[in-house]
Amino acid sequence: MTSKAAVYRGNKTFTLEAREVAPPAKGEVQIDVAYCGICGTDLHIYLGHMDKRVGFERTVGHEMSGTISAIGEGVEGLAAGQRIVVRPLDACGHCPACDAGHQHICHNLKFIGIDTEGAFQQKWNVPAHTIHVLPDNLSLRHAALIEPLAVACHDVKRARLQPGEDVVVIGGGPIGLLVALVARHAGGQVTISEINENRLAFAEKLGFRTVNPKLVNAAAFVAESTNGKGADVVFEVSGTQPGVDLMTAVAATRGRIVMVAIHASKPQIDLFQFFWRELEMLGARVYHPQDFEQAMALLEDGVVDCDNFITDIQRLDAIQGAFEALTKNPNAMKSMIQVSEEPA
Amino acid sequence: MTSKAAVYRGNKTFTLEAREVAPPAKGEVQIDVAYCGICGTDLHIYLGHMDKRVGFERTVGHEMSGTISAIGEGVEGLAAGQRIVVRPLDACGHCPACDAGHQHICHNLKFIGIDTEGAFQQKWNVPAHTIHVLPDNLSLRHAALIEPLAVACHDVKRARLQPGEDVVVIGGGPIGLLVALVARHAGGQVTISEINENRLAFAEKLGFRTVNPKLVNAAAFVAESTNGKGADVVFEVSGTQPGVDLMTAVAATRGRIVMVAIHASKPQIDLFQFFWRELEMLGARVYHPQDFEQAMALLEDGVVDCDNFITDIQRLDAIQGAFEALTKNPNAMKSMIQVSEEPA
Repeated sequence: MTSKAAVYRGNKTFTLEAREVAPPAKGEVQIDVAYCGICGTDLHIYLGHMDKRVGFERTVGHEMSGTISAIGEGVEGLAAGQRIVVRPLDACGHCPACDAGHQHICHNLKFIGIDTEGAFQQKWNVPAHTIHVLPDNLSLRHAALIEPLAVACHDVKRARLQPGEDVVVIGGGPIGLLVALVARHAGGQVTISEINENRLAFAEKLGFRTVNPKLVNAAAFVAESTNGKGADVVFEVSGTQPGVDLMTAVAATRGRIVMVAIHASKPQIDLFQFFWRELEMLGARVYHPQDFEQAMALLEDGVVDCDNFITDIQRLDAIQGAFEALTKNPNAMKSMIQVSEEPA
Repeated sequence: MTSKAAVYRGNKTFTLEAREVAPPAKGEVQIDVAYCGICGTDLHIYLGHMDKRVGFERTVGHEMSGTISAIGEGVEGLAAGQRIVVRPLDACGHCPACDAGHQHICHNLKFIGIDTEGAFQQKWNVPAHTIHVLPDNLSLRHAALIEPLAVACHDVKRARLQPGEDVVVIGGGPIGLLVALVARHAGGQVTISEINENRLAFAEKLGFRTVNPKLVNAAAFVAESTNGKGADVVFEVSGTQPGVDLMTAVAATRGRIVMVAIHASKPQIDLFQFFWRELEMLGARVYHPQDFEQAMALLEDGVVDCDNFITDIQRLDAIQGAFEALTKNPNAMKSMIQVSEEPA
């Protein structure tokens, strides 16, 4: 059986290839991929930042939705025709992190679609344990947002957010906005800090209080809007030094800072404030199975305005142009690839 | 009534003065101070690092023990002759931190002995709410260790340390060692990282596993001694960039890092590790009343070998020399001043 696949070849290049696909092995299912969003990580791969990890023969992509087309030996409780998403984590099961119950950040974690083959291909074999079956009333197009929304659910869970608490999200890109939406749904009073005026306008349309730290003193703004208390919860999603400076400046005494961003370099951090106000910082990475279930429930509840959140949908044949366009468009939220021949 | 007091005059100078002492005001008690240890903060004051906050007319000192000599109007439940220590915190009661129940890190906190008059004087008036009455079997000499030990109790409580967990304490000075002792008493498997060979030897005599990160790869040492897991709990007590580098390197997946040290500059920090291993960092400052009670109980239980921990005791008349000597002795643990004329 042949399947069309986009293969990352290095040097900002994908090639489209028709490849033979093996039937699903023992413990696997085969998916007809419907949609797959472009993650910030996929962009990093495209830009060559992860060549050592990814190589030049990899089909990437993991923010997907699809339909089960075949079932491998020994797989129970799943059937061809089921509409599904994949939680793209494959843990080793025997490292100290797995032993402690933290399989999602296993020391030897394989991230499916980065460390193994991903979803920018029409037929995709994955371990059956990664599957979440979709509720009937969720479209495959919207379901491709479940993976990034599960990240946001995990981030908010790590924050132990309580209703009525003041929240600042630093960085109003796709993940920042999803975090803001989940935090607001959990009862948080959310302010988004962002420097891109188009993203600020998008956030305001969604009803968020916003602040542009290039134009006003964001720490003073937050202090004023919280009667001098500061933010109970801060999500650092910017990955920048100014974002790291702001996170300690806006946090309330005993405030919780969730480190969502991937900081490739080592920023300077105001550790004195951690001591002085007994701040707390919590790293947050990927998700638990429950975060996927919560993300599905939130989409069913209409917490995310998916149609506005999806900036554009392009065919798999046009993936090269889609990545090129995304690198030049700092305003885009979610660019999605329709992997199947027909819209689902 | 006159009382001998050591007054910080700036320029690394204390003057000894006989001062008139007012009777305790409403809500205050008057203390005959017995002993007062020299805190790291007192050393910073002596070295001129805190002149703006402290001024040049302040009697400092807060690691004290003594006896109530007089009771002010409206004070109930205390009596002259009671042996006591002072928890040197005076909160405002009406800021966001106080409102949230965090009086110990009140936005307007007065630290008694820094922001107000301290214990390097023979007669000392303090708010009655700061008093903890000593158990009969605790000597006043040992009781002067309660305040720094309460810091360590607070630090270990912030860590949510569970019996059997692996602990690394970065920095083997007085506070680091007290943290190590409290953590071991709570069931932790404690390793102390320290670069001073005399302090390492002191820690080893107390039965701790030690590592000198200048001589060996401390992260590899901890990884090996924990079967690749790393430390469940890390206390950063060094206040240095190498200490901050080590804290993320030795922490286990989901490890908790307690920020005990006061970092005056902003060190670089490996935030990627916070994301990747979902690390947690918790600032810890001063103490709750329960930490004082726990510190007293631990001293009663003999958890601290007080007589070895107290490096030397000098008379109030010799305070200038005691501070001079301490700045030149990186091996000292606790230098103490006998404030009363006679040993208690």
